Amino acid sequence: MHGFTAAGALTTVLRPVQERICCMSHPDSHSDDERRRTLADELIEAGRFFFARGWVPATSGNFSARAGDDDVLITVSGWHTGRLGTDDLMHIDLHGRPARAGQRSSAETGLHLQLYRRDPAIGAVLHTHSVNATVLSMLAGGALVLRDLEVLKAFPGIATHESAVCVPVLANDQDIARLAARVAEVLDRDPGCCGYLIAGHGFYTWGATVADAVRHVEAFEFLFECESLMRRMGRP
Amino acid sequence: MHGFTAAGALTTVLRPVQERICCMSHPDSHSDDERRRTLADELIEAGRFFFARGWVPATSGNFSARAGDDDVLITVSGWHTGRLGTDDLMHIDLHGRPARAGQRSSAETGLHLQLYRRDPAIGAVLHTHSVNATVLSMLAGGALVLRDLEVLKAFPGIATHESAVCVPVLANDQDIARLAARVAEVLDRDPGCCGYLIAGHGFYTWGATVADAVRHVEAFEFLFECESLMRRMGRP
Amino acid sequence: MHGFTAAGALTTVLRPVQERICCMSHPDSHSDDERRRTLADELIEAGRFFFARGWVPATSGNFSARAGDDDVLITVSGWHTGRLGTDDLMHIDLHGRPARAGQRSSAETGLHLQLYRRDPAIGAVLHTHSVNATVLSMLAGGALVLRDLEVLKAFPGIATHESAVCVPVLANDQDIARLAARVAEVLDRDPGCCGYLIAGHGFYTWGATVADAVRHVEAFEFLFECESLMRRMGRP
Amino acid sequence: MHGFTAAGALTTVLRPVQERICCMSHPDSHSDDERRRTLADELIEAGRFFFARGWVPATSGNFSARAGDDDVLITVSGWHTGRLGTDDLMHIDLHGRPARAGQRSSAETGLHLQLYRRDPAIGAVLHTHSVNATVLSMLAGGALVLRDLEVLKAFPGIATHESAVCVPVLANDQDIARLAARVAEVLDRDPGCCGYLIAGHGFYTWGATVADAVRHVEAFEFLFECESLMRRMGRP
Repeated sequence: MHGFTAAGALTTVLRPVQERICCMSHPDSHSDDERRRTLADELIEAGRFFFARGWVPATSGNFSARAGDDDVLITVSGWHTGRLGTDDLMHIDLHGRPARAGQRSSAETGLHLQLYRRDPAIGAVLHTHSVNATVLSMLAGGALVLRDLEVLKAFPGIATHESAVCVPVLANDQDIARLAARVAEVLDRDPGCCGYLIAGHGFYTWGATVADAVRHVEAFEFLFECESLMRRMGRP
Repeated sequence: MHGFTAAGALTTVLRPVQERICCMSHPDSHSDDERRRTLADELIEAGRFFFARGWVPATSGNFSARAGDDDVLITVSGWHTGRLGTDDLMHIDLHGRPARAGQRSSAETGLHLQLYRRDPAIGAVLHTHSVNATVLSMLAGGALVLRDLEVLKAFPGIATHESAVCVPVLANDQDIARLAARVAEVLDRDPGCCGYLIAGHGFYTWGATVADAVRHVEAFEFLFECESLMRRMGRP
Repeated sequence: MHGFTAAGALTTVLRPVQERICCMSHPDSHSDDERRRTLADELIEAGRFFFARGWVPATSGNFSARAGDDDVLITVSGWHTGRLGTDDLMHIDLHGRPARAGQRSSAETGLHLQLYRRDPAIGAVLHTHSVNATVLSMLAGGALVLRDLEVLKAFPGIATHESAVCVPVLANDQDIARLAARVAEVLDRDPGCCGYLIAGHGFYTWGATVADAVRHVEAFEFLFECESLMRRMGRP
Repeated sequence: MHGFTAAGALTTVLRPVQERICCMSHPDSHSDDERRRTLADELIEAGRFFFARGWVPATSGNFSARAGDDDVLITVSGWHTGRLGTDDLMHIDLHGRPARAGQRSSAETGLHLQLYRRDPAIGAVLHTHSVNATVLSMLAGGALVLRDLEVLKAFPGIATHESAVCVPVLANDQDIARLAARVAEVLDRDPGCCGYLIAGHGFYTWGATVADAVRHVEAFEFLFECESLMRRMGRP
């Protein structure tokens, strides 16, 4: 049983899948191959966690992580992001060219790459598609403003609940290049933006690491659910 | 331990039950027996997934898959579809006659068979019974129209969110032959229809494979939940 | 490893806890001891399933099953019904006397025993405490009427959705004998009743077997959730 | 396999993580080291349970337990409380000084310690951050009054549903010393208080043991969900 005991197996089984997201990649202590495997595991676990929460139904959602200077790991096109295996992730360069011929990355690859090209500090981009995000994106008009909540401190640069985070809502577009151009305008106007909604099409957020981006998804989804509930409870 | 290690067991345990739905049947590469076993596994896993989501409470729901030219695998009558075993599935021909005498298939067998007889491309039919589907079926009148959402692209032939999918709502009827006749009228009028509601009685959808039909369930349930929430949030 | 392989373990782990509720007790094929162990397992599994669904929060809820002519297996007082072990169940006679001195059964034992004494066909009584049941019990007045839904067919003697099931709502009372007397009046008036609500105090239902009673809980909870949602969606 | 069989593993795997919260600490029967390990396990399991329920999203929430006369076990700063390991808990004295130099406890440590200093009967303090608690804290004004519900009996000193529990709502404050002073005023006015809300910042409750405090979280979250639903259903 090669270094593996049943008691060890048990402990591992009892640890929820989600918690394993926490083992972050340490770029210095790993070889490139190890780093890529770790990133793949983190994206796979993120997908399982989001799927368990109902945030990537059907084949919605797509994920990526920066694996090197000109190397991005990204989900392939059309696969269920809640049930990813290693073969459902592929490498592309910062212009979207696949490392291995014949593979096709997510249709929304351009929305990921514009973020990596724009900001070298961004290490992961996650697109989810929850009911609350989708419904708010249809009802919120041009932007959703979240304020006065402690969880806002989960975002970079925010140290008090007495803050307001503006989540822009963009019109949906099947032309991803055109949509990316509008995202660029939005980010030019608000460089501190750390997430945006596309109307009827869910949510994009990012972070320095996969774990940071996962925490942003969790925090935003919590805020969306609060906003959805407060609107139904007649908040003035 | 016959080709089985504890480490392998662990990995399998950690994979959510749902993801195993993805191993589709490959009609050409399997013998007939293997294909039937695979189809049975897919229906069993679909039931577990739907049950975990709350979409087949009590003994509601029934599932089937086309297993051959005149051979359909279908859930037996009155069993809990969230807890199916191999013995809770049976084979019938396209006229509902059981392959083994004494077995009784789901009371709603006729609604499944009319689809297989109508369209040779249909490989699986799934009937679920969620709270959102049931409530919308009671409040939506003759049809529910879903529009402007990215997830609509999960359905065959839809390439843009700027689409509208019409889900007909039929009155419930304990006379399944009479209900099937009304379903036929509805499908004659709208051959592109890929799902319908029965008032107070849940939802029917189908696809080329079990995996396709499961994805349709997921996508429609997401859309029903969005619709239910938008109605409560006062969408104009 | 006494008749137990890792592969077998795996299969069992992958089966959701809930499905094991289905292995019903077969009074004729078991010895008395085996029958009691099976009943205990069924109640323990029912508790886990209900807890996973959020239907027995904190130490709410209590369960019982008829184990012999003058022998009822019932949950002990004050223990969490979502986390029962064999030691958290005890035997009492039909007048509530414990088989082993010093044990104390649930405070609501009287509500269970009146059902077993009243009707020899009742084999199990389950008390759950969900949010929907609790809220409807506070808002529904003297009774909740459920109608026109296919799931009503889960209850004994109902063969069509064109039925109405009346769930009486009793005022809560810390005096269990007095509360039991009012339950008796309600059941005298409606002998077909198969479940009642206590205002602010959840739900009681029963059946011929534990599996039947579990199915009734599932069906009623589905109906309560539908009713709660329809009221919020402005059903006329 | 050192006293461990696959069958044993199986049984343990099948027991939901939550139920293990029930193995309470027995101060007399354990050495100090064993007691600390047990307390750590209880806090870790509490975090997993709350995370599964969605009550500690992102890195919200913090937990503590009294481990000795001047010794409190508490979560470290900024870690995800749903995925705690032993290293994410640390010991401090009743004035917040870490037992091991260099460790930093939760930013809200002062809110925990004021309770231990105030009342020697308090053995555990839990801070959760659910959607319902957060939304009610924003809409309830100065206090939330819960009444007429059986689950109120989960709290110390309450023997009937004909009770009212007042949950004070304090304004949020990033100055924890100032916030603690206001909590002290509230507790001075109502010594029977067993939980309070901070506006936009979730919920604090406590108990004699971790298990008691977990039960209080469960009971309050149930009551918050009922309150939230009753408000949306137009309770007069």
